[in-house]
Amino acid sequence: MTEKEMKEKLKSVLKPKRYIHSLGVCDTAVKLAKQFGVDKEKAYLAGLLHDCAKCFEHEKQLELCKEYGIELSGITLECPAVIHAPLGAAVARAEYGIDDEEILQSIALHTTGGCNMTKLDKIIYIADMIEPSRDYKGVDGLRKEAGKDLDSAMLTALQSTLKFNIKKGSIIHPDTIDAWNDLLIHKESD
Amino acid sequence: MTEKEMKEKLKSVLKPKRYIHSLGVCDTAVKLAKQFGVDKEKAYLAGLLHDCAKCFEHEKQLELCKEYGIELSGITLECPAVIHAPLGAAVARAEYGIDDEEILQSIALHTTGGCNMTKLDKIIYIADMIEPSRDYKGVDGLRKEAGKDLDSAMLTALQSTLKFNIKKGSIIHPDTIDAWNDLLIHKESD
Repeated sequence: MTEKEMKEKLKSVLKPKRYIHSLGVCDTAVKLAKQFGVDKEKAYLAGLLHDCAKCFEHEKQLELCKEYGIELSGITLECPAVIHAPLGAAVARAEYGIDDEEILQSIALHTTGGCNMTKLDKIIYIADMIEPSRDYKGVDGLRKEAGKDLDSAMLTALQSTLKFNIKKGSIIHPDTIDAWNDLLIHKESD
Repeated sequence: MTEKEMKEKLKSVLKPKRYIHSLGVCDTAVKLAKQFGVDKEKAYLAGLLHDCAKCFEHEKQLELCKEYGIELSGITLECPAVIHAPLGAAVARAEYGIDDEEILQSIALHTTGGCNMTKLDKIIYIADMIEPSRDYKGVDGLRKEAGKDLDSAMLTALQSTLKFNIKKGSIIHPDTIDAWNDLLIHKESD
């Protein structure tokens, strides 16, 4: 599938705002990739496709997970907003012809984060939070930090997500805590 | 071992402030047990002994964990302040003659919390945070809440612990997130 075909398909399955967001993540991810010495083409494809399963209805998402053999843990089933990430990796493989495991992993981890994140995983996670159409308190600070230090920006991004969810009384996905702890442990041992 | 002997032994191994704290947790736990229909004797013993391994040096704690066959996960080794809780359960069994599994579990979980906490587990966790010598912002609110609803007080206590650690940039023990998620899931299904 050519990039043009991917964009056309994506445009047909995403709501207009979500499509614009995807182009923004794609663009931001490529900039970060250049800066931090990561493969630009991988960042482009991961950024473009990271939300390719986002606009399916919940029931459809569950059905597709079954079809693609994605086993959802009990806690993931309690966090419906997380499901599109691992599902997105499977859809990117099956429907967009992506077979690069690094790209697929960065799509799978873009909502929760996880242990041992690669630079590409971090770039997609952060690009998702700072692309130009994002507008929330702290986003400019995070943009500046991402321009300097990927791990430091990841910690700030996770801190902001965790604070928000704890204040709201929401379930915290264990993979997000794994990502947070992993970054802190590696920071200490640096 | 009589209760008097337990107190004497405890006094000999704990710093004076920690011993007074233990008596406070014991007293508060008994009050909460009466209120929420939990065995008072179990609450008394768990409250009294919950910190029985707290004042051992870190190296001694690790040595005792080995001796008692306590396997510490990688993440627990990164959180030295947590170790005295599972170790305390083993010490309470071996050195204070406690063989009641409910008491031992509430000692083991009093620092991190965990999944499927019993009423006794919650009482010891909360009593540890609100006993009379505790003095921090929010403690009076938590005391009032504990007098009304155990689960609601647990959520407030965990929220306060999580907020504090995330703001500080500290590692979060996964068992604390399990406790938080578990309470939220059960609250929703009530």
